[in-house]
Amino acid sequence: MDFSIRPVTEAGERYVELCEKHAADFATRADQHDREGSFPFENIEALKESGVMGAGLPEELGGLGVVAVQDLVAGMNRLGRGDGSTAIAANMHIGTPWFVTRLWRDAVARNDTEVAEQTYGILQALTATVVCIGGTEAGTSIGFPLTEATPTEGGWLLNGRKIFGTLTPAADIVIVICRFPRENGEHGWSYAFVPKGSPGFTLNDDWDALGMRASGSQSMTFENCFVPDEFFNAQTTDWGVLDTGTITIQVSANLALSAAMVGIAEHARELVVDTVKTRRKAPSNKLLAERTGIQYQMAELEIDLATARSMIERSAQMVDAYLGTHLDSEVSADEMHELMRDFQCTKWVANRKCIDVVDRAMTLSGGAGYFSFNPLSRLYRDVRAGPFMQAYSPNEAREYIGRQTLGLGTELDI
Amino acid sequence: MDFSIRPVTEAGERYVELCEKHAADFATRADQHDREGSFPFENIEALKESGVMGAGLPEELGGLGVVAVQDLVAGMNRLGRGDGSTAIAANMHIGTPWFVTRLWRDAVARNDTEVAEQTYGILQALTATVVCIGGTEAGTSIGFPLTEATPTEGGWLLNGRKIFGTLTPAADIVIVICRFPRENGEHGWSYAFVPKGSPGFTLNDDWDALGMRASGSQSMTFENCFVPDEFFNAQTTDWGVLDTGTITIQVSANLALSAAMVGIAEHARELVVDTVKTRRKAPSNKLLAERTGIQYQMAELEIDLATARSMIERSAQMVDAYLGTHLDSEVSADEMHELMRDFQCTKWVANRKCIDVVDRAMTLSGGAGYFSFNPLSRLYRDVRAGPFMQAYSPNEAREYIGRQTLGLGTELDI
Amino acid sequence: MDFSIRPVTEAGERYVELCEKHAADFATRADQHDREGSFPFENIEALKESGVMGAGLPEELGGLGVVAVQDLVAGMNRLGRGDGSTAIAANMHIGTPWFVTRLWRDAVARNDTEVAEQTYGILQALTATVVCIGGTEAGTSIGFPLTEATPTEGGWLLNGRKIFGTLTPAADIVIVICRFPRENGEHGWSYAFVPKGSPGFTLNDDWDALGMRASGSQSMTFENCFVPDEFFNAQTTDWGVLDTGTITIQVSANLALSAAMVGIAEHARELVVDTVKTRRKAPSNKLLAERTGIQYQMAELEIDLATARSMIERSAQMVDAYLGTHLDSEVSADEMHELMRDFQCTKWVANRKCIDVVDRAMTLSGGAGYFSFNPLSRLYRDVRAGPFMQAYSPNEAREYIGRQTLGLGTELDI
Amino acid sequence: MDFSIRPVTEAGERYVELCEKHAADFATRADQHDREGSFPFENIEALKESGVMGAGLPEELGGLGVVAVQDLVAGMNRLGRGDGSTAIAANMHIGTPWFVTRLWRDAVARNDTEVAEQTYGILQALTATVVCIGGTEAGTSIGFPLTEATPTEGGWLLNGRKIFGTLTPAADIVIVICRFPRENGEHGWSYAFVPKGSPGFTLNDDWDALGMRASGSQSMTFENCFVPDEFFNAQTTDWGVLDTGTITIQVSANLALSAAMVGIAEHARELVVDTVKTRRKAPSNKLLAERTGIQYQMAELEIDLATARSMIERSAQMVDAYLGTHLDSEVSADEMHELMRDFQCTKWVANRKCIDVVDRAMTLSGGAGYFSFNPLSRLYRDVRAGPFMQAYSPNEAREYIGRQTLGLGTELDI
Repeated sequence: MDFSIRPVTEAGERYVELCEKHAADFATRADQHDREGSFPFENIEALKESGVMGAGLPEELGGLGVVAVQDLVAGMNRLGRGDGSTAIAANMHIGTPWFVTRLWRDAVARNDTEVAEQTYGILQALTATVVCIGGTEAGTSIGFPLTEATPTEGGWLLNGRKIFGTLTPAADIVIVICRFPRENGEHGWSYAFVPKGSPGFTLNDDWDALGMRASGSQSMTFENCFVPDEFFNAQTTDWGVLDTGTITIQVSANLALSAAMVGIAEHARELVVDTVKTRRKAPSNKLLAERTGIQYQMAELEIDLATARSMIERSAQMVDAYLGTHLDSEVSADEMHELMRDFQCTKWVANRKCIDVVDRAMTLSGGAGYFSFNPLSRLYRDVRAGPFMQAYSPNEAREYIGRQTLGLGTELDI
Repeated sequence: MDFSIRPVTEAGERYVELCEKHAADFATRADQHDREGSFPFENIEALKESGVMGAGLPEELGGLGVVAVQDLVAGMNRLGRGDGSTAIAANMHIGTPWFVTRLWRDAVARNDTEVAEQTYGILQALTATVVCIGGTEAGTSIGFPLTEATPTEGGWLLNGRKIFGTLTPAADIVIVICRFPRENGEHGWSYAFVPKGSPGFTLNDDWDALGMRASGSQSMTFENCFVPDEFFNAQTTDWGVLDTGTITIQVSANLALSAAMVGIAEHARELVVDTVKTRRKAPSNKLLAERTGIQYQMAELEIDLATARSMIERSAQMVDAYLGTHLDSEVSADEMHELMRDFQCTKWVANRKCIDVVDRAMTLSGGAGYFSFNPLSRLYRDVRAGPFMQAYSPNEAREYIGRQTLGLGTELDI
Repeated sequence: MDFSIRPVTEAGERYVELCEKHAADFATRADQHDREGSFPFENIEALKESGVMGAGLPEELGGLGVVAVQDLVAGMNRLGRGDGSTAIAANMHIGTPWFVTRLWRDAVARNDTEVAEQTYGILQALTATVVCIGGTEAGTSIGFPLTEATPTEGGWLLNGRKIFGTLTPAADIVIVICRFPRENGEHGWSYAFVPKGSPGFTLNDDWDALGMRASGSQSMTFENCFVPDEFFNAQTTDWGVLDTGTITIQVSANLALSAAMVGIAEHARELVVDTVKTRRKAPSNKLLAERTGIQYQMAELEIDLATARSMIERSAQMVDAYLGTHLDSEVSADEMHELMRDFQCTKWVANRKCIDVVDRAMTLSGGAGYFSFNPLSRLYRDVRAGPFMQAYSPNEAREYIGRQTLGLGTELDI
Repeated sequence: MDFSIRPVTEAGERYVELCEKHAADFATRADQHDREGSFPFENIEALKESGVMGAGLPEELGGLGVVAVQDLVAGMNRLGRGDGSTAIAANMHIGTPWFVTRLWRDAVARNDTEVAEQTYGILQALTATVVCIGGTEAGTSIGFPLTEATPTEGGWLLNGRKIFGTLTPAADIVIVICRFPRENGEHGWSYAFVPKGSPGFTLNDDWDALGMRASGSQSMTFENCFVPDEFFNAQTTDWGVLDTGTITIQVSANLALSAAMVGIAEHARELVVDTVKTRRKAPSNKLLAERTGIQYQMAELEIDLATARSMIERSAQMVDAYLGTHLDSEVSADEMHELMRDFQCTKWVANRKCIDVVDRAMTLSGGAGYFSFNPLSRLYRDVRAGPFMQAYSPNEAREYIGRQTLGLGTELDI
């Protein structure tokens, strides 16, 4: 009986099956990419070819037609079992076509032909374009970007620096979160689409970290980088206020990131179950699995894993219950924040439990997992990335959850 | 947006709605029954009248037709919000008609007319009969009863003592787990149906405990208590081996017990949210909710509650995914043990998290919750009952989970 | 080999020995006082006669001459093993003669004859007088009392209400923390000495709580209660600012309260070790102690207990290292706050670990501990009082520790 | 006020002062040695020159005369602040002269001239010789070595393989734990002294691990390596039974290893306190330290650190209370096992809390600590080594503690 995170639709089952196949392949190269700190371009190519990258695209555009967040979540979980770096890189892209499809379906349902055509055009472009997000900056939070777009002839000049640019080595376009001056003298919060190779846009090739070393999460610099008007959205929210769509993506796509961490944990578990079921030690030479110390550690590992899986799957179900019955234009920021609150509870627990599972697998390995040649040592480093991920780090999550629970709103005192 | 444990069918929704109404009523008397240690006969009567006690009976017999375990779980969760003692008492009965209905449907599907008629007869009886279980004994585990049935003319003589006889004050029949001599000289594991008032069957009226004081969990003594053949099942398993049906009930009905603990936790949460959102303290006289200490505690409470809810709901889903696609005769002990293993992971975490939630509510109350007049002090005592409940206490759970995970079987070294 | 909290002087050893004898005696009545909610006057009498109440008095006044905080801590630990309620009640008094002795020694060392005589007079009075503290109020923190002293002819009129008046049934004088108007229009923080029987001072005989039911922690009302000038200190700090002496007492005496919780935990441990080393269960009938589930729970209990003991003893050592080398007049509020910060770390962990130890003992009891007749059920209720105790509840402790660690001062945003 | 682990003698204070100076120096090279995986020979040289390596040697032999375990513990704590790898490497040696000094003093006290001269000779040799231990083997526990000494003309032939040979690059002699055939046909447990360069003794230069990369913990192979009789002790215990001296060293020296982990944690804390007290972030640009999320995380870090420090210092005190009043010949295995049990409680908590402190520092760094250039990323890898260290890993510790607490002896079922 399999207690993995489950897909919930046929499209999701196809998606998960593909992801499982990729994972088996990616696993063979994960340690080498980790050692080299090299980006797995061949993995991303394979994901493009199989359709995983376009999972959320409508079937009529060659996509897999994945709509349910739980399906996305289950897929990333499987990819995470093979290579965490590739999973989080791929996930950077996958959310975008999925969300634009929501916009398109909404426009169609509302008979808004103009928007329908526009979004369909984007979807067509996304069949052959890899996108990623330039969100994080040193020195501020994602809601308050300091990267700035200033108006110029026919467009905008972008200046700033982004870090943690996961997937940038393979991305054709980076969606850069920024601020821009408004007529009222305040800043607006927005984002620009910046194609790779744009003058003034530099990828700094400086990703060298504890883990997720194959995720290409380098920094990017924008120096008077020109962005034409059609690649910039000036009809957005105030600086500091995430628009509803961004919250929708943050909840949905980031649940999948947490699920990738579960995949890493599951890989660690598999490695160590193999070990203790086959290895014997003196003096008794009985299987390690027959020692009570191993049994109790294993039970505790199982409990942690069950916790992480349950919370992620249930949060995905709650998101689907809402998004599945609300077109994008019917989604409210308030309700998305309630789902965000639930996700933050899940993220707080699940990402930590994934770390705990790998840590316990390390313990169960009896020291062997501490050697660099043992994949556990990579998993231990990779899985630690989880809590840093968007939205809300552990430094912020409790303030967000607590204040919202008590009816004090969703803004932080930061 | 409501993150409560959800029912999944229309029958379940009706059931949950009834349970919510009862809970509001029961809550008004819970503290008094606790103080007095009195049994809430009026609550059980009300549950009989509304149909909650017969939730699992087929609709043609006047039942609510609840089939899904998740529905049972959601209902007990709601009852637990009103009065934990009544919830665990009612739950003692509810599993039986639900399971006998499974037996009946199985017989019908298999065209086994004899069993179909027999089980239908039992279901008819259950429309007007309250049953409970005499399972636990001091000095042994439920799989190894020392209470003994010895053959006599036309039936069996039962001798032994049972403790934790929840619901016995209102039960018409107690299902007494016992052993009996087999022809091969070994003992068999079985159960006898013993009507209240049977000669030799004494209820000891000795329930006086830390919490769950209104659950009537007194001890029972059987002294040469005659049980006619038709009330005893001699075609069962070996002593020490639970039959598949018993495991099925233990997983399903006990998930509902854990959900009742969640109800207690939710009640505690509600009380304390009310407090901190309305109470002010010097020197600032701002609302308690505006203090960071309160916000962080509240966030931690929410996280624990989300954990408990998620695990219970997901375990119920896993059970329903299996039981919903397997008739009773198709259910295997091995697969039920896998579901039991998952439930044990859930029980380990969820029952503890419910205790933590009430404990944190106590902290948030700032001392007020420690007074006897404050319902929190009852909830603190009631919720501690959770980990003791069947199947597998925390003393046994990790051995069970660990050994099973490692392929070493489901038997404990006890 | 004994890993109990250790006394560090000969005086401390005598004190601890006395406490151990009392504990054995008190244990025989603890359950009855708990059931009745009655105050153990006979215990307090015994403690007065043996000299425990006057432990901190100089030997020349018939005291035990206990100076080291670690000694006080070890003694309360032993009393807690016998009866938590009596321990926390006695501790209310014991800190006062100990601290006044510090004041007296300081005055003598400074050749301040006037203060030396005055404090010596108080010490003489304390040989025959039991005092306790009226500190806590609903609706505010101890630093910001709302109980008010207003000036009147020859003294002050006291108005207000105090809760958690532990030891009041046996106290001759209550030290009531209050505020009073200052010439600058602000409030001062101070305390008044109010003898039992003073007109306008009512003991409300309303203590009825989850645990510590024999501690007499009733509420008190002051209605125009006259306090003569000599019983009131008008030379104190601002409202909201604890004076250095109060912080000194709060750190020292409250460490002893945490140690009493350890005593409760040790009692629970002892009960359950006896149980599992003597009780057998079917089917194997081997000792419970021989089951791995019991061994692992026991190890976890031991680890928690070792944690609590270590932290309390070490915090006491840090306090003694400072107070032992500084006369009272040399003590600075800043340094006492550093010791308070250390104590708060200890309190956060140790009080919780004591709860965990009793909880685990409950688990190890296998259900037996849940019955009212089992002392474990009392210990489970008693030990929960720990976190509420002064200074700083879990709602405040992290703000205090965190801000102070980061150099942001010791004031809370409350 | 400093809450660091304290030395308790003047010799200890001198030792700790030296260690602090070294730590400041070693810190400047720690990251480079980590990157390169190179052994810090220059650090070990410096420790030899300053006298740290010979801390436990009598002053008349040029040692620092450190006797108290708490002093050793405090010193390693300080070294750990500078470079964890160097600390654990140095600690491999330091325990030996300390223990041989105990043997020598014991012989002197017993007027056993022969042993006194012999041990004094060893101490003289240790003034210029670095030793380390070849203890761990894949496939067995330290009590059951498979490395075998077989008798030959004038000595023994050693065969086997050891792993985790910390300090071997700088060691002149390796003490190799092994077994040997006894006349009764059983194996004895013993150890051989093997000088570097002995034929048949190969250092495999294969240390490449997650952390502690500069500790030189390579594997060693012994192939018919000749050990003369005078370098082998054939008067020892049975295979599987550690002799009392070994337990004494395991408790004492390994407490110092746990203290080195505390040093790592303290370093992480220092780094992150600096960060949050100086760094500002948009939108408010207030100091990170002024955010409640930072304050609460910091408080939790402080609490964990206080826990680790307290337990280690207290366990050291318990060891000193015993060893300080018992000559080596008066030490019993039973009592050392009680101290080992206490140390195991401490190790279980403290090593985990050190991991938690570094983990929380990583969180507080807000992502910066995840970069390879940030020392936190090394500390995160280094501190994870703690739980693997002797004696008893987390896979074994609870069985050992639990069984011993319950009077079931000190042997494990392995």
